[in-house]
Amino acid sequence: MKESVLDFVKIKQTAETWTREAGEYIKDQMASSSFAISTKANQHDLVTDVDKNVEAFFLDKIKKTYSDHRLMGEEGSFEEIKDLNGTVWILDPIDGTINFVHQSSHFAISIGIYQDGHPVIGIVYDVMNNDMYSSLKGEGATLNEEKIPPIINHPLNESILSFNSGWMLEDRRLERLVKEVRGVRSYGVAALEMAYVAVGKLDAYISFNLAPWDIAGGYALLVEVGGKATNYEGKPLDFLKKDTLLAASPSIHKDIFHIITK
Amino acid sequence: MKESVLDFVKIKQTAETWTREAGEYIKDQMASSSFAISTKANQHDLVTDVDKNVEAFFLDKIKKTYSDHRLMGEEGSFEEIKDLNGTVWILDPIDGTINFVHQSSHFAISIGIYQDGHPVIGIVYDVMNNDMYSSLKGEGATLNEEKIPPIINHPLNESILSFNSGWMLEDRRLERLVKEVRGVRSYGVAALEMAYVAVGKLDAYISFNLAPWDIAGGYALLVEVGGKATNYEGKPLDFLKKDTLLAASPSIHKDIFHIITK
Repeated sequence: MKESVLDFVKIKQTAETWTREAGEYIKDQMASSSFAISTKANQHDLVTDVDKNVEAFFLDKIKKTYSDHRLMGEEGSFEEIKDLNGTVWILDPIDGTINFVHQSSHFAISIGIYQDGHPVIGIVYDVMNNDMYSSLKGEGATLNEEKIPPIINHPLNESILSFNSGWMLEDRRLERLVKEVRGVRSYGVAALEMAYVAVGKLDAYISFNLAPWDIAGGYALLVEVGGKATNYEGKPLDFLKKDTLLAASPSIHKDIFHIITK
Repeated sequence: MKESVLDFVKIKQTAETWTREAGEYIKDQMASSSFAISTKANQHDLVTDVDKNVEAFFLDKIKKTYSDHRLMGEEGSFEEIKDLNGTVWILDPIDGTINFVHQSSHFAISIGIYQDGHPVIGIVYDVMNNDMYSSLKGEGATLNEEKIPPIINHPLNESILSFNSGWMLEDRRLERLVKEVRGVRSYGVAALEMAYVAVGKLDAYISFNLAPWDIAGGYALLVEVGGKATNYEGKPLDFLKKDTLLAASPSIHKDIFHIITK
């Protein structure tokens, strides 16, 4: 069964509601004394529990409400998904797990809803800031209900990039980039960093190791505002395997390739 | 005239009130159409105006209220300050200027109030998140009125560091660090990154080029919770000149020196 645009308007509203509910659950778990008093090692176990519970929450809701949709999630639902036919929810219950444990902030719930492999709905929810980034194909993207304007192409020497410093050890060409741009940041939360590219807080985000659930929501959001994302070789993203990522405004995407291939 | 502890309790309250007022002014300026519609280049001029106006606001308030105090600020009050005798306010009206222009977030007002060169009051205000970090020597530090607990010494392999990727090109020893820690972040706003070390969101912050006004507030805050900050050579910070910085929990401060000097 194919969904119409009107169906997807409703699906997006529902997905946002569930996402906020999941966010409240996560905040409750963080506020619970068992989380606060536990060691970092224990916190990692607790994160795994929260991750699993949030994914189970979505799996249950989706099965009951949209019985023909499927869920690809970080916590175990992945192995069942061998193709992207029909409507597939690609979920990261907590993107930025290390931040979650160490900072109790700077993490996000990320959802991409894809139809036959193409992005239709993107949701990135910055839980602690209550910032809801969302998009619907053809209808634009919003941050907390406010329209996100089309992406801006800054000159490279005025741009701010984001990538983990560790990637510089794996590809020395990134050093050339560091010298050409205005600034480099790193937030450790892929979904949110893609959302930052969508709203212009960053001009590009680069990573060398991401799973489909890390990027599916942010990718839907980004393309809806005119951004561009490929892997680091410039090839289309494959949402069935782990890959590298270069997400940027179109001109910076081009500029970065010019720099790293020269 | 020497201030007593009770005087400083009042001075801290007053400084926080002025800081919030300055924050409201900054938000108003950001919301004004002239800022929103201007180009990035023009925005830099506007930032300079906002910077200057905030510093002038503090200078006026301090002169009227504490006539024997002096102000060291980024925007021009610096040249008059040749020593740190008496009570000196060390102010950065907008720390994280590039973020201010490019992200409209992730910037801070930073104030350190020093007596004869020693930190007494520290204020770091994350304007867009309304997060007020503040401290009074001997009385502890708070985030939004909540007590910040003593700094935690994490093992190095569980720690999160922050520094700009560009510094790796200037000192290759940072590459050793990248391999030993759990994660590296970069936010581009020194005062806030020092506050993050104070509250444990980061275990260390490193920079190779900071002015006294970038670090005076964060340093006061950090030492009050048991953190340690020196320059990158391990020497005491000098609040009369630009310098490098290594701000960390005590054990990570030691671990980092062990790594970069081995």
